[in-house]
Amino acid sequence: MSQQRNAPGTDNAESGDYDPTASSMSGSVEDSVMDELLAIRSSIDNFDATLVYLLAERFKATQRVGHLKAVHSLPPSDPGREKAQIERLRRLAHEAHLDPEFAEKFMNFIISEVIRHHQTISATHAETGN
Amino acid sequence: MSQQRNAPGTDNAESGDYDPTASSMSGSVEDSVMDELLAIRSSIDNFDATLVYLLAERFKATQRVGHLKAVHSLPPSDPGREKAQIERLRRLAHEAHLDPEFAEKFMNFIISEVIRHHQTISATHAETGN
Repeated sequence: MSQQRNAPGTDNAESGDYDPTASSMSGSVEDSVMDELLAIRSSIDNFDATLVYLLAERFKATQRVGHLKAVHSLPPSDPGREKAQIERLRRLAHEAHLDPEFAEKFMNFIISEVIRHHQTISATHAETGN
Repeated sequence: MSQQRNAPGTDNAESGDYDPTASSMSGSVEDSVMDELLAIRSSIDNFDATLVYLLAERFKATQRVGHLKAVHSLPPSDPGREKAQIERLRRLAHEAHLDPEFAEKFMNFIISEVIRHHQTISATHAETGN
């Protein structure tokens, strides 16, 4: 479980690159515990990169929906769709052993961002016809 | 691009199953537009299932961090780590053509949930020693 660790102020910090060992607890935690923490954090960093790329792809799809709605003058939000999405996500969360309350909060967080995008696309379309 | 669509009140709605065609706009949009919308929504549904399972796995990892922190009496939050995570996520978002502001909001949303979990684990550990 040992991980390579840079001393503070070496390469990573100076070049502005990501330092996977960054921690406010450095020096105050025994090495074996810090090694275990860094091993788990390395997996979390991989999950986070995957999340960012997946969210980017999801927003590409909702941008397409936004343009379709703008061109055909459809409303930015669709309460019937959102209700069905949230119920499905809660069920999937339950199957995945993720807190369904959190899954619902998460979906509402994403949907509110998407509606904001749809409104922007709609306003731009109304102004420019594009 | 044609999709199977159930009439309202048929199988899906009655059984409580997910209806991928659920929409408050049903009947008020021309068929070709609704078909295109449903095709994109079908991809969004797949992305969402992937997101839920990925988040479930991320929370498994942070639960392990939570237990490690509780056992070794480490603080629930780690501002140095969180700052590095957010900077990295903003950079990855830029590469993935995702709004870095959104990526930062998203990461703060996830981190605040994780800290809440860590506090719960820490309180449970203090009470029971587990």
